[in-house]
Amino acid sequence: MKAVISAKRGEVELMEVPLREMGPEEVQVKIAYCGIGGADPFIISGEIALPLPWHMGYQASGVIVAMDKAAAAAPKARGLKVGDRVALDQLRYCGACYNCMHGHETFCENREFPHGYLDSMMAEYATLHQRQVWKIPDSISLEEASLTEVIGASMPAIDLAPFQFGESVFISGMGSCGLLILQMAKLRGGTKLTISEPVEAKRKLALKLGADYAIDPRNQDVVAEAMRITDKRGFDRVIEASGDPGAILPCVDIVAHCGRIVLFAIYPPHWKLTVDIDKLYFKEAGIQTVFGQSHLFPRAVDMLPKLDLRSLLGPVFRLERFREAIEAHNTMQYAKVLVKC
Amino acid sequence: MKAVISAKRGEVELMEVPLREMGPEEVQVKIAYCGIGGADPFIISGEIALPLPWHMGYQASGVIVAMDKAAAAAPKARGLKVGDRVALDQLRYCGACYNCMHGHETFCENREFPHGYLDSMMAEYATLHQRQVWKIPDSISLEEASLTEVIGASMPAIDLAPFQFGESVFISGMGSCGLLILQMAKLRGGTKLTISEPVEAKRKLALKLGADYAIDPRNQDVVAEAMRITDKRGFDRVIEASGDPGAILPCVDIVAHCGRIVLFAIYPPHWKLTVDIDKLYFKEAGIQTVFGQSHLFPRAVDMLPKLDLRSLLGPVFRLERFREAIEAHNTMQYAKVLVKC
Amino acid sequence: MKAVISAKRGEVELMEVPLREMGPEEVQVKIAYCGIGGADPFIISGEIALPLPWHMGYQASGVIVAMDKAAAAAPKARGLKVGDRVALDQLRYCGACYNCMHGHETFCENREFPHGYLDSMMAEYATLHQRQVWKIPDSISLEEASLTEVIGASMPAIDLAPFQFGESVFISGMGSCGLLILQMAKLRGGTKLTISEPVEAKRKLALKLGADYAIDPRNQDVVAEAMRITDKRGFDRVIEASGDPGAILPCVDIVAHCGRIVLFAIYPPHWKLTVDIDKLYFKEAGIQTVFGQSHLFPRAVDMLPKLDLRSLLGPVFRLERFREAIEAHNTMQYAKVLVKC
Amino acid sequence: MKAVISAKRGEVELMEVPLREMGPEEVQVKIAYCGIGGADPFIISGEIALPLPWHMGYQASGVIVAMDKAAAAAPKARGLKVGDRVALDQLRYCGACYNCMHGHETFCENREFPHGYLDSMMAEYATLHQRQVWKIPDSISLEEASLTEVIGASMPAIDLAPFQFGESVFISGMGSCGLLILQMAKLRGGTKLTISEPVEAKRKLALKLGADYAIDPRNQDVVAEAMRITDKRGFDRVIEASGDPGAILPCVDIVAHCGRIVLFAIYPPHWKLTVDIDKLYFKEAGIQTVFGQSHLFPRAVDMLPKLDLRSLLGPVFRLERFREAIEAHNTMQYAKVLVKC
Repeated sequence: MKAVISAKRGEVELMEVPLREMGPEEVQVKIAYCGIGGADPFIISGEIALPLPWHMGYQASGVIVAMDKAAAAAPKARGLKVGDRVALDQLRYCGACYNCMHGHETFCENREFPHGYLDSMMAEYATLHQRQVWKIPDSISLEEASLTEVIGASMPAIDLAPFQFGESVFISGMGSCGLLILQMAKLRGGTKLTISEPVEAKRKLALKLGADYAIDPRNQDVVAEAMRITDKRGFDRVIEASGDPGAILPCVDIVAHCGRIVLFAIYPPHWKLTVDIDKLYFKEAGIQTVFGQSHLFPRAVDMLPKLDLRSLLGPVFRLERFREAIEAHNTMQYAKVLVKC
Repeated sequence: MKAVISAKRGEVELMEVPLREMGPEEVQVKIAYCGIGGADPFIISGEIALPLPWHMGYQASGVIVAMDKAAAAAPKARGLKVGDRVALDQLRYCGACYNCMHGHETFCENREFPHGYLDSMMAEYATLHQRQVWKIPDSISLEEASLTEVIGASMPAIDLAPFQFGESVFISGMGSCGLLILQMAKLRGGTKLTISEPVEAKRKLALKLGADYAIDPRNQDVVAEAMRITDKRGFDRVIEASGDPGAILPCVDIVAHCGRIVLFAIYPPHWKLTVDIDKLYFKEAGIQTVFGQSHLFPRAVDMLPKLDLRSLLGPVFRLERFREAIEAHNTMQYAKVLVKC
Repeated sequence: MKAVISAKRGEVELMEVPLREMGPEEVQVKIAYCGIGGADPFIISGEIALPLPWHMGYQASGVIVAMDKAAAAAPKARGLKVGDRVALDQLRYCGACYNCMHGHETFCENREFPHGYLDSMMAEYATLHQRQVWKIPDSISLEEASLTEVIGASMPAIDLAPFQFGESVFISGMGSCGLLILQMAKLRGGTKLTISEPVEAKRKLALKLGADYAIDPRNQDVVAEAMRITDKRGFDRVIEASGDPGAILPCVDIVAHCGRIVLFAIYPPHWKLTVDIDKLYFKEAGIQTVFGQSHLFPRAVDMLPKLDLRSLLGPVFRLERFREAIEAHNTMQYAKVLVKC
Repeated sequence: MKAVISAKRGEVELMEVPLREMGPEEVQVKIAYCGIGGADPFIISGEIALPLPWHMGYQASGVIVAMDKAAAAAPKARGLKVGDRVALDQLRYCGACYNCMHGHETFCENREFPHGYLDSMMAEYATLHQRQVWKIPDSISLEEASLTEVIGASMPAIDLAPFQFGESVFISGMGSCGLLILQMAKLRGGTKLTISEPVEAKRKLALKLGADYAIDPRNQDVVAEAMRITDKRGFDRVIEASGDPGAILPCVDIVAHCGRIVLFAIYPPHWKLTVDIDKLYFKEAGIQTVFGQSHLFPRAVDMLPKLDLRSLLGPVFRLERFREAIEAHNTMQYAKVLVKC
């Protein structure tokens, strides 16, 4: 089968490779769509240093084509069968180590690379553990379902600093994660939903998806606007999802008393955060980082019918033209670029 | 001024009474609208036994016409001024007793009747402590603002048994509280939002306001429908807001493993709940009652712009025709009937 | 090997049976001690109806004697090795079904009986999945470690209705669960720790383990005492751990405003709870049942060094004399009776 | 009466001043003991810049000597009477502003200085609002009761980053706050309780009060010890209570996956925290600051009987010798130095 693989730092190719055979409790899936993810450029460049050759692709949907007998024989286990339309979870955890058994499956001590985690879905087929495979509702298209990983990855931006009905929320960066965090902030009872995003099309999309206020950080003073919107109180939750280190310091200025700053994005390696501790202390504020807990995948599946995913879908490229998909992603003009596998 | 007063059990009249003078930190409000509340018929009949004569009215909006100097002289305290359009909180708590100081202001040990709690707003004017008076956003009409009390009263149906993104929610009874609980359940990330309501117009309104499924309990089997919708798993949250004791037992059948039943409504006095404890135990389920915490009023104000209140507004009657308003309310055809004061 | 087995309703025997061979990721353990559990008499009588022949024993410790290569080859997975002193988790869940993947492993849809759940540890040896086997600290004896299951089962009495520093707690029934709930209530910042228990020796033990007040329900008025201790406010948490249905109704009388009643114990099958709903409603109280979540085993292991387990240990009987152990348990004079296997 | 007052930056004197007369709902208290607090040296030096002349003293106990009729006439409000032994809350909030009504009384927008907040208790008498005055149990001495403010101030170190049974806790700095945080961490189910403290006597006291491990940061490698104690996993909660900026960076190294760092202490003004964001991100860790929420005073009173306060009491000086008390405090050899007023 064909698969997109990075065999050398900085390079990525469409290669012919064999489909891995199924082990116990595994299933095989014909991939339908695989999104270009925020980590992909970093993986290719080596800034996120993963073992080579790396099999790309971690945001995908597809259809089950084969099942190991242990997976098929336990119908109640997952209720899966050949032909099911499914969303695919990148996270393959052991379920037995200390971290898994303390609810931190994201930090499973037995993750195996490649084939199993953050990989191998930008290909014609994939072999996965049944736990990674989730049937989707009839009302959800396979294009939309490829966003399930993004939903699960975005959810901790809310879950790790949960808030009450009526609290105000600011989000910077309206990529696919930012746009989903926005929708989930609304679906958590957030108010004065304010976004900051330099690309006009994304600001418009955010307003359509529930933002009450949109700020253009290139032409407006983010801090001044934020304080105006909140009657000088600042926001109860300030979620940084742009990945731009320059966007972090304003967060400290615009977080409210007893508020929390959530650093959701991927920042440049070894980037140092320098913050005047008084500014946090006198507001009793906190900072929470998010690594991206994909053990939230089950709840992401549950949320599929409650989110506007269609509006996030940008151009679709065939597998052979995956490079164009990456280029389109890199323009930062689209919320989500898909590869049709 | 004119005020609606119940001077004898079973009777209620429009009377001429003096407006109470302001004490320290008090303000006077010209009432704009006062809703007929679920407790009103019970108060008139004496089933909710309050001291007579009882000054009716606990869901109101208005405009500030006068302020005590202690309220006016502390501008930061509340930021209120004469002419402000305001929503009125029925709860007047002391802020100093054991319950108030442990976060249970609803059960303040120094509530005074009448004038101060659950009363006196179905009148031309009212005198209230500044803490009971909340400025509303320009985008909210005075009709809508009269629903603020209902929002605050409904909020604990979610807050006292909070749930996670993706959990499923069932609500029985689509009065004004039920319709607001429905909206808040959606705004809390609930899924498979299912309502049960005998009045067709209210079912339609619920579907418009976010329900995914609507059941007619007079013509459909609630338990069978509920189990069909949830793939036989039941609902994670089952909220009873109809006040019909017959609606409670099905809740036990349709609550999911690890789920919670919320008994939100007002039930007939001394009504006995009889439940097979096995049915709860083998699902590790719980039952939570709601008295109606109106100390949630501040957050209810914050939520005003996030809820569809306009759709809940039914007919409006002038103060002199308040009896027709009560009769309209008693038909149970309307989500909210207002008296224009 | 020898194992205690119930082959007919009402009967239980020490039989010679083969030790089940290890499957993937399984280990074999020489059982050291197995406690008589609260469910054991109900299992023998058939009131808890499990498939026969039933292999008894669900509260055990031991030493690893063999490991499947999949368990041994993944040293990071569990860090287990032959010779390790271990506590044994009765719960064997699939980790893949809907309930397991939504955090409700207790209600795994693929539990297999017998051999795997709630069974087979009152024997010379047991074969278990590596996930069920937990290494214990050097400071914990094998006798104490046999109580780990009881800790995990008791923990939800606190976790399912968590409370804040300073809230008051009442617990009825000082069996091994009650005594552990008492210790955990103290280790959760509970105050006015009050227990009710008819057996004098257990009352004394409770006072030694942290109770502030002990009530003898046979000779004292529980409600009157409870209200006296709490200045007529009642308790914020009322935990029923006696299994006596007669102990439930007083819980409704002594729960405080905004309090929660936790029904922790096993009650007679199909027993009906009848409660005046007003009594709950006017206090905004709730009732939570506990099935006994043993997926809390990992945290129970973590807590081993923080609990006084030694004081709970009663008489120890050799495996051949297991009947005497059950009889001793049934006298209700001891917190925990052990069988030395 | 005599009162300790700072009239010029860097100076503090015992002066003769009139006792402020009671306003509505106020009471007068004969001060028994007032502790030297961590903020006192900063207030005198002006590093915490408060308006002069500043009336010192914010950790005190005493006996009620007079009550305004509004306070006395509402016996249920607080249940206070002349002669009651009381603990005194430094926080005087308005109860009506936005922050107060959203549960953030600590950040009341109407705090008045001096006389009302963080002041005036190192004197023979004080006039306070009845809400600031709390009756203490008979079993608590007036010396112990002067620590109530410290308990309330320390509680958010646990409350703002709450943890589950079994999670591990590290605390640096064993001043009076650190020693109380340690006790509360134990009373929250924390494990592997580890403290770091340079003063030997305080390390010994911490071990007596519940620490499992004590590190001497002057002679031991804190990070190496921390990783050894936690099997290289780090601590789930890392609470910095020493005020030494140099103690913060190791916190980042020793916090576990999904852990939280709590910056509890008062740090030098405008001190900048510089942290490699990767170190937090790859562990999905968070940082929470604590300003010191004294609206937790009611729950601090509830906890008085559950804490060992006697062990924290150091030398006591008469009011005339208050300077010696401050000097003794500055030696950092004592957990708490008291002034007998």
